[in-house]
Amino acid sequence: MSLYSIENPVFLAYAIAVAISALKLMGQGWVTVALMMRKGRGFASPEDLRPGALNRVPDPAKLAPDPDVERSRRMHRNDLENIPGFVFAGFVFVAVDPPYALAVVCFAGFVIARALHAWAYAGAKGHETRATFYTVGSLIVIFMALWSLGALLF
Amino acid sequence: MSLYSIENPVFLAYAIAVAISALKLMGQGWVTVALMMRKGRGFASPEDLRPGALNRVPDPAKLAPDPDVERSRRMHRNDLENIPGFVFAGFVFVAVDPPYALAVVCFAGFVIARALHAWAYAGAKGHETRATFYTVGSLIVIFMALWSLGALLF
Amino acid sequence: MSLYSIENPVFLAYAIAVAISALKLMGQGWVTVALMMRKGRGFASPEDLRPGALNRVPDPAKLAPDPDVERSRRMHRNDLENIPGFVFAGFVFVAVDPPYALAVVCFAGFVIARALHAWAYAGAKGHETRATFYTVGSLIVIFMALWSLGALLF
Repeated sequence: MSLYSIENPVFLAYAIAVAISALKLMGQGWVTVALMMRKGRGFASPEDLRPGALNRVPDPAKLAPDPDVERSRRMHRNDLENIPGFVFAGFVFVAVDPPYALAVVCFAGFVIARALHAWAYAGAKGHETRATFYTVGSLIVIFMALWSLGALLF
Repeated sequence: MSLYSIENPVFLAYAIAVAISALKLMGQGWVTVALMMRKGRGFASPEDLRPGALNRVPDPAKLAPDPDVERSRRMHRNDLENIPGFVFAGFVFVAVDPPYALAVVCFAGFVIARALHAWAYAGAKGHETRATFYTVGSLIVIFMALWSLGALLF
Repeated sequence: MSLYSIENPVFLAYAIAVAISALKLMGQGWVTVALMMRKGRGFASPEDLRPGALNRVPDPAKLAPDPDVERSRRMHRNDLENIPGFVFAGFVFVAVDPPYALAVVCFAGFVIARALHAWAYAGAKGHETRATFYTVGSLIVIFMALWSLGALLF
């Protein structure tokens, strides 16, 4: 049996975490879109100033940055800096057949840490709070990558 | 037989879509490079001002932003916000063995939607046109992730 | 036997390259963090100005950009533009069962090219040096994607 099968409990847990992470990635894009439309600011392309169904009241200020839109873009960038690394390290982690409990702690830990990071970032909580959740997520990815490398090389 | 095998028609379709998406990702980087070289603008690093084979006529203005280079960078960023999500959701989608026709519609639909998005973005078509193709691609990814989550959890 | 198994030497080489790439992705984030803390510049969010354990001497200048922090962010962005493409093209490459020697040259070549790119970028070497390593890595990804497409389609 291949390890990359939902009959493998480790892979099942991984697949759930990947699906949730993909939803987070796409959802953050829609948060940015919703904020741009609601606030009428933060558009990035000059053609977005043209009148149209998405722009009934043309206004050059729509290209000006908006703090909330920029916050959502920073959250998106932070996701892009962390979620692919998680998916990649987790993919290799599955290949070396880790203990089930360890795998679930890593996969669930990452998803929960990133959810709390998003909550802290969206609510402009203190830097320490956000940094803590970032650190937990990042260390989980680094741990999975190092564990996998150890198993692959030795 | 593993589902992750080109003998599985769903996987074969997925693999083709992933290979095309990887080419799009890398190609956009080369579009940015070509525009920077042709227009002599939009370089990002101070050391790029030094004379050399890539910079025969040193000019501090080379670090100034250029509208076409910035457009290509925004297209690249938009790819990075969408293609990894597609690859991740599609990977999990393959694991839950969806109907072949549904899978092909999702994979081909995403590739076509992103090709049309690139056409609309590169040509500065109206915001509505670009947003429509973005929406189609994004909803396909979200659909695959939700379908997969449903199959994994229930 | 599935090709996605560490008993397949091509997959084993791929998995090692993916694990190293994941470490590079996460490590660059920590380089940015370390530079922000050491230089007290380059913070991105207004809430990071609040006094706290990470900010014992509040100073509005902490939000000002810093050349070293920006360099690390550009390196990170460059990784994000290249590493996911490598992982995606390599994943499909494994599926079409390439010759072992060719696969190792591609996987090791990419890792080495990106390590040298990071060395050139961090040290502000000339544009030609950095561009050479970028080109090698990018062409390897494009080659793998085209080879895979050929094998999948014909």
